Amino acid sequence: MVESPNRDNSRPSLNVRRVNLDTGRENVVVISRHSSALRPEIFRGFSRVELRRDAKVVLATLLITDDDTLVGPDEIGLSEPAFRRFAEPVGSLVTVSPAAPPESLDAVRGKIQGRTFEPAEIDAIVKDLTHYRYSDMEVAAFLISSASFMTSHELLALVHAMATAGTQLKWPSPIVVDKHCIGGIPGNRTSMIVVPIVAAHGLTIPKTSSRAITSPAGTADTMEVLARVDVSVDEMREVVAACRGCLVWGGHVNLSPADDILISVKRQLCLDTSEQMVASIISKKLAAGSTHLLIDLPVGPTAKLANAAEAMRLRKLFEFVGDHFGIAVEVIATDGRQPIGNGIGPVLEAGDVMAVLANEAGAPADLREKSLRLAAHLLEYDPQLRGGAGYARARELLDSGAALKKMQEIIDAQGPSTCRNDIGKLTCDIHAADDGVITEIDCLQLNRLARTAGAPIDKGAGIRLFHKIGDRVENGQPLYRIHAYDQAELDMAAAAATCKSGYIIGARHPQSAGTAP
Amino acid sequence: MVESPNRDNSRPSLNVRRVNLDTGRENVVVISRHSSALRPEIFRGFSRVELRRDAKVVLATLLITDDDTLVGPDEIGLSEPAFRRFAEPVGSLVTVSPAAPPESLDAVRGKIQGRTFEPAEIDAIVKDLTHYRYSDMEVAAFLISSASFMTSHELLALVHAMATAGTQLKWPSPIVVDKHCIGGIPGNRTSMIVVPIVAAHGLTIPKTSSRAITSPAGTADTMEVLARVDVSVDEMREVVAACRGCLVWGGHVNLSPADDILISVKRQLCLDTSEQMVASIISKKLAAGSTHLLIDLPVGPTAKLANAAEAMRLRKLFEFVGDHFGIAVEVIATDGRQPIGNGIGPVLEAGDVMAVLANEAGAPADLREKSLRLAAHLLEYDPQLRGGAGYARARELLDSGAALKKMQEIIDAQGPSTCRNDIGKLTCDIHAADDGVITEIDCLQLNRLARTAGAPIDKGAGIRLFHKIGDRVENGQPLYRIHAYDQAELDMAAAAATCKSGYIIGARHPQSAGTAP
Repeated sequence: MVESPNRDNSRPSLNVRRVNLDTGRENVVVISRHSSALRPEIFRGFSRVELRRDAKVVLATLLITDDDTLVGPDEIGLSEPAFRRFAEPVGSLVTVSPAAPPESLDAVRGKIQGRTFEPAEIDAIVKDLTHYRYSDMEVAAFLISSASFMTSHELLALVHAMATAGTQLKWPSPIVVDKHCIGGIPGNRTSMIVVPIVAAHGLTIPKTSSRAITSPAGTADTMEVLARVDVSVDEMREVVAACRGCLVWGGHVNLSPADDILISVKRQLCLDTSEQMVASIISKKLAAGSTHLLIDLPVGPTAKLANAAEAMRLRKLFEFVGDHFGIAVEVIATDGRQPIGNGIGPVLEAGDVMAVLANEAGAPADLREKSLRLAAHLLEYDPQLRGGAGYARARELLDSGAALKKMQEIIDAQGPSTCRNDIGKLTCDIHAADDGVITEIDCLQLNRLARTAGAPIDKGAGIRLFHKIGDRVENGQPLYRIHAYDQAELDMAAAAATCKSGYIIGARHPQSAGTAP
Repeated sequence: MVESPNRDNSRPSLNVRRVNLDTGRENVVVISRHSSALRPEIFRGFSRVELRRDAKVVLATLLITDDDTLVGPDEIGLSEPAFRRFAEPVGSLVTVSPAAPPESLDAVRGKIQGRTFEPAEIDAIVKDLTHYRYSDMEVAAFLISSASFMTSHELLALVHAMATAGTQLKWPSPIVVDKHCIGGIPGNRTSMIVVPIVAAHGLTIPKTSSRAITSPAGTADTMEVLARVDVSVDEMREVVAACRGCLVWGGHVNLSPADDILISVKRQLCLDTSEQMVASIISKKLAAGSTHLLIDLPVGPTAKLANAAEAMRLRKLFEFVGDHFGIAVEVIATDGRQPIGNGIGPVLEAGDVMAVLANEAGAPADLREKSLRLAAHLLEYDPQLRGGAGYARARELLDSGAALKKMQEIIDAQGPSTCRNDIGKLTCDIHAADDGVITEIDCLQLNRLARTAGAPIDKGAGIRLFHKIGDRVENGQPLYRIHAYDQAELDMAAAAATCKSGYIIGARHPQSAGTAP
C-alpha cells in the first residue's frame, strides 16, 4: 500500500469501541465483516493492521466478525491491551490499513540469511519491540535469528539498546548493589534474607524481582505473602530512601521493557541461550542503576546448568558484558543439586525466610548458610569493610535481629499484603518406597508437582520437604507433604508424585550435600 | 501439567459455543474470566490451550473476556476455524487445559542450536503442522531454524513428509504433466493457454493454482473470471476425466496442506529460501500425481531471480529433488524483465488469454510466444511426438482453434463464473515524462499499483499496458491505464504512479526485449 496525502480523507473512519477481551500482551482489534469503511475483504483474519489517529499509530492483530453486538459496521473494537496502549477515548475516529511489517524486520531477515546486526539495527529492533510493533511471530524470528550465533558486538549492542529503552533508575548512593539468581532451584528464596542483611548494614539494594513464569514461585510471589509488591517507580524510590532496600515486583517499574516481551516468547518456545540470558539480566540491572552485581549460578543434574564447565562459560560471558558497561559483576557457582530450604510455593517459602530471619530453631540451615554467603559477597563491596570480614558481618546482622528488624521496616514501607496467606489445608504425604539414603532430588519434578498443586496462584499450595540428600529413610517414611487449596489439584499432584516422587534412594551413602559440585 | 485418569471427571466441563470471529487459519477460543470450570487465572490471554472431548484434541490460542454476551461462565467460544476443525456440535462438553507445546518442537529447538533434523523429526513436524498444532510463532521457529542451512537429507525428508501429509491424487494416465512458474511477473498468465493446448493434444494436465498472495492476480483469480474454480477433489477428477485438463483453485483439494501453513507465515515474514520454495512446489506436484513437470523461472532486475547464476542454482536444486522422487523436472529460465501480456489484474489478464486463444489480431504476442514455448516443452513428453516437433504441434493446436475449443470445454465442465467480470470503468492514464525509448519496467511497482487499484479483490481493477521495453515514446504519451471500481483506490494508485510510474525512459535503444537475459 502507498501513502498519499488525501488518504485519511478518502477513507471513512471508524469509531473506537472497547471490547472486553484480554489478549495478553498482544494488541488485537475486531472489525465487522460488513464495515463499509474497511472493505474487510482485503484484510484477512489474524493479519496485522495499522490503526491511526493523527500521528498516533498502533499495530494490532485483526479479528473479523459478523456479530453486530460485538462491533457495528462503523466501529472498531480494541482489546484491553490495544485500548490501553492506543490511549484514545471511546468514540474517537480512526483509520485502519494493512500494516507493513516493521522496517527493522529487514535486519532480522538479513541475520537469518547469515549477516550480523549493525548496532543501529539492533537499536531499531529494540525500539520496535518496546513499542509493541512486533507480533509474537516476528519476536520469534528475532530470537531465533540470534540463537544460533551472536557476535560479541551484537550482544553488547543488544544489552545497551535494551537497558536504555525504558525506565532508567538513578540512586543518590555511589554504590548500588544487587543480586540475581538464574533460577531453576525450588525454594532458594535467598534475596528475601540477603536484602535485609545488606540494607541493615547500610548499602543501597533496590531489588526488583519477577513473578514465577514456569516455577511454583518467584521472589515477587513469595514477598507478596508478606507485603504489597505491586508498586510504582516513585513508591519504590520512597521505600529505598526510607529503608536502603526494597523487595518489589519489577512489572510496574518498566526496566528493559523489551526484555519482558522477549521473555514471554522465549518461554512459549522453551528457548533460551546464554547470550540472551546475559542480555536479559544485565540490561535489567543497568536500567535499575546497579553498580555491583552478584550472580548466583546453581549447578546440578536437574538445574539449568548441568556442570562446572557450563557455569564457567556463562560466568565469562557475564564478566565480559559487565566489564564493558562498567558494572562490577561477580559470578559464583552454587550447589544446585536439590531445593534450598524446606518449603516450595509462596507461603511455605515465606515461612522459611521468616524462620531464618527470626533465628528460629527449626529454620532451614541450607537457606541460612547460602544467604549468609551471598550477603557476605555483597557486603564486601563496602569500602569501609575489611577484606574477608563480609561473612562475619552478615552473620552478626542476622543473629542480632538487625536483619529481621530491617525486613519489618521494608514490609511496613511497602504496605500490607492483601493476598490469601494460609498454608493449604488439604494435604497428602508422599512416602519413601525403599530403605536407604537419598542420593538425588529432581528439582524439575518438584517444581512441576508444586505447580500442579496450585502454586504460585494458590499462595498456600506447594510442598514441604522432610528430607534432603544424604538423609537415611525407611520404606514408608514420608519424604514430603503436598499442600493445596483445591481437592482436584491435590489429587492431580498426588497422582503425579505417586508415579514419580522426584527422590532417588540408594543403598550407599552419597557425597555430603553441603559442598558445591 | 500431568495426566491422570480422573482428570476429566475432576474438572468441570464447558459447553461449546460458536463465536462469530474469523481468525484466519488460527484456532482461537474465548472463555469467561468468571468461568468456575477453568480457573482462568492460571491461563493468560493469548496463551495456548488444549481443547479435549474424549480422544479429540485441538490446540488453540486463548482470549479471556468479562463480556457475558460473548460467552457465559460455563461456555467456551470457538472461533470459525476452531469450530470447523474441532467439528463437535454446539453444546458439546469439553475440557480445556494449558497446552504443552507440540513435542516435535524439541527438534526445532535442536535445529536452532545447530543440530540437523532426522527424517522422523521432520515427519512429526509436518504432521503437527497439518493438524494445526503449531501456533504462527512456532511455525516461524521451524521456518527460521531451517532458513540458514538445510542439508539435502533434510530437504528430501521435508518434501516427502509434506507430499504425503494430505490428499494424494492418482490418475489413470501414465503421463501426467504440469507446469509451474515461481511468480513475480505481472500478467504472465501462460497456464491458461498452455493447459488447453496440452489437453487438446491429449495429454493429462490437471492444473491446480493458487490465488494471489502478494500479487494482483493468481491463475485461480484470473480463471475465476471465466469459470468456477472453487471445486472439490471429486469434481476436479470429473473435469479431468472429461477434458484431460482443468484450471482449478488448489484451496479445496488439500494437496500438501502443511505447505499452505508455511506459505502463510513465510508471507507474513517476507521470508523465502530456495530450499523452502523447492519443497513447497515439488511436494504439491508429487501430491497432485504429476509425473512430468516444467518449471518457469523468470529472470530480471525486478523478478524473483536477478540473474542467470541464481536461476542456475535453483534449477539444480529442482532437478536434484525431482530426480530423487522420480518426477521428470525440466527447468527453464525465461525473460523476466517486464510484464508478459498487456493486462494486469484478473479481468484484464483473462482478456489477454482469450484474445490469444481466439487468435485475435490485437492479442499480445509475448504471451502467445511464451505459452507456445512452454506448451512445446510439455508436448514433447508425449512419446508419440517426434523430438523437436513440440512447438509446431503447439502452434497447430492454437492456430486451428482446437485450444480455444478445449478451453470452452474446460469452462463448461467447471461451471459458470459467478463473480463480477467487467473492467473497472474508473480510469486514469499515466504518461511518459520524457521523450525516448523505454529501457526498464519495474515489475514490483506495477504489481503494487495494480493491488492499490483493487486487484485481485476487484476483478476488473488493474492496469492495461500500452508500451513495453524497446518502444519509443514521446513526452505526454500514455504509458498505461489504471482501472478501478472504487474512486478512492483509483486516486491512491494514481498518486503512487505519478510519484513512480515504474517505467524508465532512456535516450538510446536498449537490447531487444524478445530474448531471455
